[in-house]
Amino acid sequence: MSIITLTTDYGLKDHFVGALKGKILSEYSDATIIDISHYIDHFNTVEASYIISASYDSFPKGTVHIIGVDLESNKENQHIAMQWNDHFFIAADNGILSMLSQKIIPQKIVAITIHDRLHNDATDLDVFVKVACHIAKGGVLNVIGKEIKSLKQVTDLQVTLSDDGNQLKGNVVYIDHFGNVVTNISKKQFLECAKGRDYEIEFRNHPITNILPYYSAIASSDKYPIKYYEGKKLAIFNEAGFLEIAIFRSNPLTVGSASTLLGLNYRDVISIRFKS
Amino acid sequence: MSIITLTTDYGLKDHFVGALKGKILSEYSDATIIDISHYIDHFNTVEASYIISASYDSFPKGTVHIIGVDLESNKENQHIAMQWNDHFFIAADNGILSMLSQKIIPQKIVAITIHDRLHNDATDLDVFVKVACHIAKGGVLNVIGKEIKSLKQVTDLQVTLSDDGNQLKGNVVYIDHFGNVVTNISKKQFLECAKGRDYEIEFRNHPITNILPYYSAIASSDKYPIKYYEGKKLAIFNEAGFLEIAIFRSNPLTVGSASTLLGLNYRDVISIRFKS
Amino acid sequence: MSIITLTTDYGLKDHFVGALKGKILSEYSDATIIDISHYIDHFNTVEASYIISASYDSFPKGTVHIIGVDLESNKENQHIAMQWNDHFFIAADNGILSMLSQKIIPQKIVAITIHDRLHNDATDLDVFVKVACHIAKGGVLNVIGKEIKSLKQVTDLQVTLSDDGNQLKGNVVYIDHFGNVVTNISKKQFLECAKGRDYEIEFRNHPITNILPYYSAIASSDKYPIKYYEGKKLAIFNEAGFLEIAIFRSNPLTVGSASTLLGLNYRDVISIRFKS
Repeated sequence: MSIITLTTDYGLKDHFVGALKGKILSEYSDATIIDISHYIDHFNTVEASYIISASYDSFPKGTVHIIGVDLESNKENQHIAMQWNDHFFIAADNGILSMLSQKIIPQKIVAITIHDRLHNDATDLDVFVKVACHIAKGGVLNVIGKEIKSLKQVTDLQVTLSDDGNQLKGNVVYIDHFGNVVTNISKKQFLECAKGRDYEIEFRNHPITNILPYYSAIASSDKYPIKYYEGKKLAIFNEAGFLEIAIFRSNPLTVGSASTLLGLNYRDVISIRFKS
Repeated sequence: MSIITLTTDYGLKDHFVGALKGKILSEYSDATIIDISHYIDHFNTVEASYIISASYDSFPKGTVHIIGVDLESNKENQHIAMQWNDHFFIAADNGILSMLSQKIIPQKIVAITIHDRLHNDATDLDVFVKVACHIAKGGVLNVIGKEIKSLKQVTDLQVTLSDDGNQLKGNVVYIDHFGNVVTNISKKQFLECAKGRDYEIEFRNHPITNILPYYSAIASSDKYPIKYYEGKKLAIFNEAGFLEIAIFRSNPLTVGSASTLLGLNYRDVISIRFKS
Repeated sequence: MSIITLTTDYGLKDHFVGALKGKILSEYSDATIIDISHYIDHFNTVEASYIISASYDSFPKGTVHIIGVDLESNKENQHIAMQWNDHFFIAADNGILSMLSQKIIPQKIVAITIHDRLHNDATDLDVFVKVACHIAKGGVLNVIGKEIKSLKQVTDLQVTLSDDGNQLKGNVVYIDHFGNVVTNISKKQFLECAKGRDYEIEFRNHPITNILPYYSAIASSDKYPIKYYEGKKLAIFNEAGFLEIAIFRSNPLTVGSASTLLGLNYRDVISIRFKS
């Protein structure tokens, strides 16, 4: 079994995703195709990068991940394929993969060079399909591209640690289906800085002083049922390992969510101040 | 082939559903994974229960159904697995399965006990994945849990029959993609009470006196084309066997739907009065 | 491997699509089921026809396409199965397949006649499932229906060429996830009429005089980065081969789209005037 995952901003109303799967199966009928998301915000490479980083390692090693966001090959962005953490990623060199691979060095990166081997009407997606199926069948990267040493670097939305080591500053990179607010501060970064110290999570004057192990841990007192705590704000490391500000059992369509109730939006700053 | 179905309130924008599938395939690469719905209203166990009851028996016996709605294990809700009608269901004991199994007694129920056999960072979903793959591979329930005799009972939104046997009273439990209003009154219950009598379906002063065999049966006269009947209200037993109030060829985005035009919402009462 | 594709207006919140897949797998466990779209506008046969025509040939020959839009069998619409371009299509005879097959003659069309061979509660979808699995397993059309020679013709929204051959007039048939406006004018029709002449694409006083080979070709000057061109309007033949009016890197949720910014809606006229 070879798995090919899809992460795009195509939505599910249009025929693009279905057609993409048809092309993959035409090229490689044994592929197992899994959707990660097709509702990435239009052309939002930061969001695409978060979604793929949060999900890729739920898949077996060797999985091929197609990222169809801002994928048009043009004078600024070439098509690349990257082997990283024993997974394969195919995308345009528009920053998505550089954000993904900031902490761990890629095993190999190639600039895809097969465009002239395809038929005249071939689209950018046709190129991605060809490369994905080649890799899924066990083919090597050097056959479909020319090795390059680095990706286009994106320095936007980086987590920073203050010089005195007392403040970790990140940004909102994603707002999820429940309206919960996900930051780019990882549990690993937090633990390295915290060293057991007390802390306050600061954002718009609503400090939180305790990161919970799971959502319903907010129900701290045995005097009340869990239902009593609905609507309370909390912090947690989500299953992808990133700091999340949440409203307990929120519903964005009715009572509101962390994003709407706390006024937290994409790119807003959230920081953790450690007590000395 | 073993089928694992997914019913959640995760939505399709986030990576959760894709990651869940990756975890299942990592554990059991031969699984066939089918989405039932990922747009259950946030934390709405009644809706989850309706959707799974309306769809489970379209799948072959032996299918494993994961229900990821309000699934966090906490002091009130434990994780359970249930064999019922030769299908398997994995959920939190939050009422979803008790609503499902009110009419037919489960073959076996276990409280899942494998949590301490998983790695430290294991999430509630990781537990569900482990159990689902165990069952899909043919494993027995007793290996992953401890048998229990009953589920947490939920008595909300039950169909009742009046003492004189002349009125069947139910509730709106679901509003579908067409804005049609689905009740919890089943065709079976209706037939048992009706015994051939005439009836009126009562809701907000719009009685309907005839349940149609199919939607376009509303076009009763040969004098008019079917198009003439668009916008008329009707009652039908939907393909899942539940009484539904519909507007013929409605479109919630343009002309309105049964829900908006007739003012019928989730939990509203709908009753059938039989003539003596 | 046999592929069955699904194109419906059922949406993804309800259980219908999941149940449909369960029924297919119950009947034919080796089927590979691919979603094309489940967000066709309610009962919109023109949109269904565009989506299936734009995607069917991304799939291997022999693929079976189920079209579940306005599919109820009634006094006006019978169920049909059609072999066309070495693909198979199952739908109601409501115009969807006549629009699809206007340019190329179908290899075979049958009116489905198996309804009385199914169980009493069988729905229209059950009929489609039975027929689709029969064909996917390699069965012939004559076993499940009676050959007919023609489809119900739909003459709505046709591309026309003026008598002097100088104006090609089409309509908006689809607005995609990016808010781009797709017409029914094909690249083939355009090339046949253009014969190398200059042209103006006319719609609401915003003529465009150049159809681009790809979206970012709008960035014509090396003096500016591609980002500079965001928000500019352009024309392109989309990957399905149809003329599309687009806004470069539009986002319907924030800055607007071709549809909203240029005031172009479903059914609006767009024409190409060729210079003599």
